[in-house]
Amino acid sequence: MSAAERASLPARSAARRMGYEVRVADATDAERIAQLLHDFNTEYGDPTPGPEKLAERVRELSAAGEITVLLAAGGLAVLRFRPSLWKEALDAYLEELYVVPGRRGQGIGRALMNRAIEVARERGAGDMHLGTSEDDVAARKLYESLGFDNHEQGPDGPVMYFYEREV
Amino acid sequence: MSAAERASLPARSAARRMGYEVRVADATDAERIAQLLHDFNTEYGDPTPGPEKLAERVRELSAAGEITVLLAAGGLAVLRFRPSLWKEALDAYLEELYVVPGRRGQGIGRALMNRAIEVARERGAGDMHLGTSEDDVAARKLYESLGFDNHEQGPDGPVMYFYEREV
Repeated sequence: MSAAERASLPARSAARRMGYEVRVADATDAERIAQLLHDFNTEYGDPTPGPEKLAERVRELSAAGEITVLLAAGGLAVLRFRPSLWKEALDAYLEELYVVPGRRGQGIGRALMNRAIEVARERGAGDMHLGTSEDDVAARKLYESLGFDNHEQGPDGPVMYFYEREV
Repeated sequence: MSAAERASLPARSAARRMGYEVRVADATDAERIAQLLHDFNTEYGDPTPGPEKLAERVRELSAAGEITVLLAAGGLAVLRFRPSLWKEALDAYLEELYVVPGRRGQGIGRALMNRAIEVARERGAGDMHLGTSEDDVAARKLYESLGFDNHEQGPDGPVMYFYEREV
């Protein structure tokens, strides 16, 4: 066991006792992931193809190495990785972060994010980015407490917006 | 020649006469792309590994199909594609858009964006997204005129922010 592993043991054990240990999903988790994604979009009134189609898609994308999913009791994080244009490293993108309503406020989102950052580091990512909405106050507070910034070139820079359109 | 191709001819010829025809870059363009990327970051005070290292990286990522670069006289757009989690389509991401200072205000950015949307459609993308800064007024005006929105669930929704951190 390395010193780093030993140092992180108390935190891991506490997480286990609190029931929100986070693990990297494997091929057997597709249905569970699909259900959480479906619940996520249903809760926010966004379109969803339904749990069955989502499970198929999750299976495909996981097998192709296109997504990395972290699972906790009642929550998940979906990560993407791509080689950075500017450095010899990966860019990590947090595509989804969700905790079911009944498990919110228990530190599950934070546990998922901490593990997401750990996994991104392990894979060799240099940067991580994400998009989130102005009114998602709890998520923004969490991201900001973890050092994410929505300003260009440091906290005094201009705000960065996330734009999208259908093509 | 298809009807669609015929219909787009006048616009293409005008673009050619104005000197801002846009084309998809190939393996021979790595140095040119690298120089534009280097100039971009130098102009905005962002770190750059220099034109030589960038050319190598552009060659690697192009060969691996990781980036699609569009070139115009004095400008470029860098696109990424990844399979969407939510539908059987690709997501397109505009990673960089740059026009050199001496060629701004001539419609080159718009020509690059129009071609980027065309290319995204041709590849089978369903959505396109991008991040940009509050004070990049010209770019935001261009994106908004092309139908990009930085609000969740339509123009009356909450603003979407782009967050990042090193990992």
